[in-house]
Amino acid sequence: MEKITSLPGFRDFYPDLCAVRNYVFHNWRETARTCAFTEYEIPVLEPTELYRRKSGDEIVKQLFHFTDGGGREVALRPETTPSLARLAAARQRDFRKPMKWFQIGACFRFEKPQKGRGREFYQWNCDILGENSPAADADLIATAILVMRRFGFTQADFRIRLSDRNVWSAFLASQNVSPDHTATFLQIIDKLEREKEELTAERLTAIGTSLDAVRTFIAAKGADHPPLMAILADLAARGLDSFVEIDLGIVRGLAYYTGVVFEIFDLNHGMRAVAGGGRYDNLCNLIGGTDLPAAGFAMGDMVIANLIRETPHANALMESWLASQRQLDSFIVIADEAHRPDALNLVQSLRAAGFSCDYSYQPAKVGKQFQTAEQLGARSAITVGSEFPNVKLKLLASRTESSLDAATIVDSLKSALATP
Amino acid sequence: MEKITSLPGFRDFYPDLCAVRNYVFHNWRETARTCAFTEYEIPVLEPTELYRRKSGDEIVKQLFHFTDGGGREVALRPETTPSLARLAAARQRDFRKPMKWFQIGACFRFEKPQKGRGREFYQWNCDILGENSPAADADLIATAILVMRRFGFTQADFRIRLSDRNVWSAFLASQNVSPDHTATFLQIIDKLEREKEELTAERLTAIGTSLDAVRTFIAAKGADHPPLMAILADLAARGLDSFVEIDLGIVRGLAYYTGVVFEIFDLNHGMRAVAGGGRYDNLCNLIGGTDLPAAGFAMGDMVIANLIRETPHANALMESWLASQRQLDSFIVIADEAHRPDALNLVQSLRAAGFSCDYSYQPAKVGKQFQTAEQLGARSAITVGSEFPNVKLKLLASRTESSLDAATIVDSLKSALATP
Repeated sequence: MEKITSLPGFRDFYPDLCAVRNYVFHNWRETARTCAFTEYEIPVLEPTELYRRKSGDEIVKQLFHFTDGGGREVALRPETTPSLARLAAARQRDFRKPMKWFQIGACFRFEKPQKGRGREFYQWNCDILGENSPAADADLIATAILVMRRFGFTQADFRIRLSDRNVWSAFLASQNVSPDHTATFLQIIDKLEREKEELTAERLTAIGTSLDAVRTFIAAKGADHPPLMAILADLAARGLDSFVEIDLGIVRGLAYYTGVVFEIFDLNHGMRAVAGGGRYDNLCNLIGGTDLPAAGFAMGDMVIANLIRETPHANALMESWLASQRQLDSFIVIADEAHRPDALNLVQSLRAAGFSCDYSYQPAKVGKQFQTAEQLGARSAITVGSEFPNVKLKLLASRTESSLDAATIVDSLKSALATP
Repeated sequence: MEKITSLPGFRDFYPDLCAVRNYVFHNWRETARTCAFTEYEIPVLEPTELYRRKSGDEIVKQLFHFTDGGGREVALRPETTPSLARLAAARQRDFRKPMKWFQIGACFRFEKPQKGRGREFYQWNCDILGENSPAADADLIATAILVMRRFGFTQADFRIRLSDRNVWSAFLASQNVSPDHTATFLQIIDKLEREKEELTAERLTAIGTSLDAVRTFIAAKGADHPPLMAILADLAARGLDSFVEIDLGIVRGLAYYTGVVFEIFDLNHGMRAVAGGGRYDNLCNLIGGTDLPAAGFAMGDMVIANLIRETPHANALMESWLASQRQLDSFIVIADEAHRPDALNLVQSLRAAGFSCDYSYQPAKVGKQFQTAEQLGARSAITVGSEFPNVKLKLLASRTESSLDAATIVDSLKSALATP
């Protein structure tokens, strides 16, 4: 029979890979908690219209989309922001503002799989709705910096590149360029670093400005734009300004951003964008007919996991967390099969008390059972044999052994494992 | 513009509902940890062939399935066991046996949505691969009982109904019924409680046995079947036998079970099945061409969440967990806008130290900020004003207030919140 494998661009999370994913999730969730974001979740499958309304017909070919058994046009979510806008618009009166919400889950894109980009990937979304001040933008950026530092990254590893699309609107006005050219102009700016200089210059001239004017403006780093200055001052108060640089060349491709935009860039491994976001004050209205200012950012699991692996100090932090997760509190060694029922009773007591605990399903030599305990990363082994109700507790790191009464095993194990 | 809503049978997890989901996930994951299961995950989208090979063409109409942009027949996973069999068969040599693996994630079924059954639902899967002894079956059942008790359910709330399909094979042999009738026979048994007595009797007679013989056999409760007796003895050693009853009428509809089967039944709210599972020793071979004995069970999030809500002692446990999750460690009250930078600095220090912490983005009266602190469930409020670097720490439960140096705020808050 032909072997069935997973689809291209989809991942099988065997335990080792799943543990790495869980490490990423753990830091995402802990950061969201400390920064006072509340978790929500949205369906994996949504009406295709939701994405069409936000991004136009073009987006559909990048989706896993189909007609369901009830004749509905549906799509696997490529992102969660349109759904968030749908939820927020539908019930915004029920929640105090600002709404600081986060979400972690799988998203899907039908595109060519490559390193750091799969067809199924996990994403962390942090959004602040109902607040349009730079203070909220700054809090989002502080959250993004906090998660990077929690992963162990330092100022030498990454930078936040900060910009504001409104700065460019002011620029275009000063150059007497029609606002109709704004979208075209932002696309030119988005490609500034990748496109040939002559072509860029030609395109800018065509809409009534010049490459020189753009470069001079970028060099000024938006120094007279109050929102950007307010964000920098806010982050400076937190001691985080050295993580941020104004870079007006960042405009973010997505059409729906309306103001401040930012990206986390890695500084050492190809300058990849690790996360990105910005202000999107019109989306809740477009999706749900409700005016609600909003800003947020998203981080995917694939780029950040690769970056952790490639950065020794971040990788060491992860490895230490992974090792702590692999630990088993106790392995019950059954030295005398006649006492298997007593051993099972201990297993039950320890698990009910919150200890992780395992044992051998089959009779086995004591030496083999100790070997299994080591393989499972057990911190302790409890030997149940003919001396029962006396049992032996061995701490596997220090090799110290003591004799105990089975009746008090929960307390004994608690104090034994509490000692470092 | 037309309002876009979620698809029928799909849920919008607003924060309150998401918190309930997280409570269920928390208990699932904690139980899996104490019982020494390791987490894995599989793709949400799989080749349709995977499900067709396990369950035949009939299953396809219950799937969300389509042809992707690359011409592949694909389906949203309706369950995870076939994928687990795929993973295990592909790399079983890499893992020590028994493999105790668990998974938590969304599954999808295209069927009529009703109470406790959605088109998208979450499921917890616990499986033991590479071990065919009743000891493994007993450990799975013990795990299922442990999670129910962790949710606060007692012996008065639920029961494990235990059976073994092989008992019926022995019965059919004793009645000289051809093994070819086994599938038909198990379908009759599966419907025993729901079907009209005359029809059942007629069908049994047609294949060469009788309703009387079946009833007498069920009344004997498999007392001479060694695997069932071994499981009962194992659970009795753990003090869990009173949670279990042999009920040979339970055969589980799914064709792939090969031996022991069991269900968790609720005793007070319509006798719903809360979870179910059993032994499926042939599936890894069928899916991946590798012989690997296996057993497992699954629990969905919808029935268990409803049952918790309907059971006061379980609901009280959940509410207390939910309240603890809603808490914010500290709200920073900015009494003097001139000191906002100092307040932001405190926010940063507290968050970096692991405290959850929030503040007002806009200038607001002190009274209003305290009101926000209460609404956010803050345990403490730290007032930053003109006396800075002296700040005031107020514990909101006890209303006690103290004056502190901002430089030592992390340690001060740690000890203040540690005191109950």
